[in-house]
Amino acid sequence: VSLLEAVPNLSEGRDASRVRELAATLSGEPGVRLLDVSSDPDHHRSVLTAIGEPAPLVDGLYALIRAAAAAIDLRHHAGAHPRVGAVDVVPFVPLGGAAMGDAVEAAHRLGRSVGDRLEIPVFLYGEATPGPERRVPADLRRLGLAGMAAALEAGELRPDYGPSRLHATAGAVLIGARTFLVAFNVWLRSADLRVARAVARAIRERDGGLPGVQALGLFLESRSRAQVSVNLLRPDQTSLHAVVERIASEARARGVEIDRGEIVGLVPESVVLRAAAEALRLPELTPSRILEWHLRAAPEK
Amino acid sequence: VSLLEAVPNLSEGRDASRVRELAATLSGEPGVRLLDVSSDPDHHRSVLTAIGEPAPLVDGLYALIRAAAAAIDLRHHAGAHPRVGAVDVVPFVPLGGAAMGDAVEAAHRLGRSVGDRLEIPVFLYGEATPGPERRVPADLRRLGLAGMAAALEAGELRPDYGPSRLHATAGAVLIGARTFLVAFNVWLRSADLRVARAVARAIRERDGGLPGVQALGLFLESRSRAQVSVNLLRPDQTSLHAVVERIASEARARGVEIDRGEIVGLVPESVVLRAAAEALRLPELTPSRILEWHLRAAPEK
Repeated sequence: VSLLEAVPNLSEGRDASRVRELAATLSGEPGVRLLDVSSDPDHHRSVLTAIGEPAPLVDGLYALIRAAAAAIDLRHHAGAHPRVGAVDVVPFVPLGGAAMGDAVEAAHRLGRSVGDRLEIPVFLYGEATPGPERRVPADLRRLGLAGMAAALEAGELRPDYGPSRLHATAGAVLIGARTFLVAFNVWLRSADLRVARAVARAIRERDGGLPGVQALGLFLESRSRAQVSVNLLRPDQTSLHAVVERIASEARARGVEIDRGEIVGLVPESVVLRAAAEALRLPELTPSRILEWHLRAAPEK
Repeated sequence: VSLLEAVPNLSEGRDASRVRELAATLSGEPGVRLLDVSSDPDHHRSVLTAIGEPAPLVDGLYALIRAAAAAIDLRHHAGAHPRVGAVDVVPFVPLGGAAMGDAVEAAHRLGRSVGDRLEIPVFLYGEATPGPERRVPADLRRLGLAGMAAALEAGELRPDYGPSRLHATAGAVLIGARTFLVAFNVWLRSADLRVARAVARAIRERDGGLPGVQALGLFLESRSRAQVSVNLLRPDQTSLHAVVERIASEARARGVEIDRGEIVGLVPESVVLRAAAEALRLPELTPSRILEWHLRAAPEK
């Protein structure tokens, strides 16, 4: 079987019962397994992690986007995390048995349904980008909803599916295909948003930082804390440990200690193992050193 | 099924083909799975990790001890790691489905066979100690072979099984039952054995250090390096990360940096996960955050 993971990000992180209702439209699809829901009230965002074969996963995500368009009105939305859609972004990730081509195909199939039937403009990104240039969600979000509306109006921006105007309540949706990434937030012992922004700038690839790192400095109103929110796109190139250490040293250089971090969604085992090997200076800490790996892997004799 | 792990330590770490031959006497027993062999030429010691149900595991270990008594002559043995037997120590650890009582029973059954049929004195330790005081291998090894021979002669020490004199070539064997421990070595960027000994003293429980930590300072002749050799007996009480950080700080206080460490045998996944959570300051890094954990655990729907 060809298994895909999908990590839809919902623009609702405060009303837990609404998140549960929306998540149920995805998990209610036979063949879809919802593995995790990470909600953040300050981001006003929930990250859902689901797996399934391509067909049921696309059907479940269609149901989720339709329900979110009815339940969420972006015109009355204010969260620390930037967004352009009620369901802001839907990445497909190939898991066991699947190739990137399967993820790209799923992105196109979902995009076509959402654009044609729900009349929400769809922008494809990552490996699913139609043109030669790989589109990045952050670049589209940086336009903001008003900027995106204007660019669509002026014909400077064209959706890959759906109408050339934003949906009244649901905005747009970014649908993509990519390899696994690690999403995590690091809390600073400070309420100074400028420090979080400076640290984010120092570590992110776009501004000359670490390879495969995307980062934003955010302020968490309910907790009066500044936060560095990170996507680590290529954890085999830049390790999770290296990113955390760099955040700590960049913050320290600005007189701020880091408090603790939080994982958003799920992490592959290999990423954790590599981080532990580095932090413990135990380079041989590979899967073959893990007891359970043998218990699972070794055939009975 | 009731599964036990056994981690016999062989007093041979230099002759790889002899280690292979001896290991084959254990893995050749149907129902025994040999998961790992970690040999160290300076310690002149090999640590074997095997699992199986109690009966075949005891039979395989009996074959190993018999073969080692014929192949290894302790009178011509010089290794950095202290030892009292050709097979120096055999701990049994309860795994899935097994209770500590199963491990204790296996220790007794193996001890009786080895004592009666191979005429090697057997000392039971850990949870398998017959009396109220839990015996510790390090206390017996500290006697040395000569000291042990004298104590047996004088009647100050009595084996739990077998004769009251050492076996001519194989010495004695320590057989025990315990929970999982993590064995690892940390190499110092120094050849100064005194530093390794001072660090070992500072971190081990016996001398007022960290709970559940046993440590020795050793000198690795072939590599001209000092090493701190550690057993972490209760990794849920003192984390692997805490021990490594403490070794680094104790060494640094003596002007020495640590190089890298090495795991001996296998480590449970939970120990690695906890170390990563601490090192990365991601306290929520629990099994439910690991993608593969869900892929394995969640039932298909």
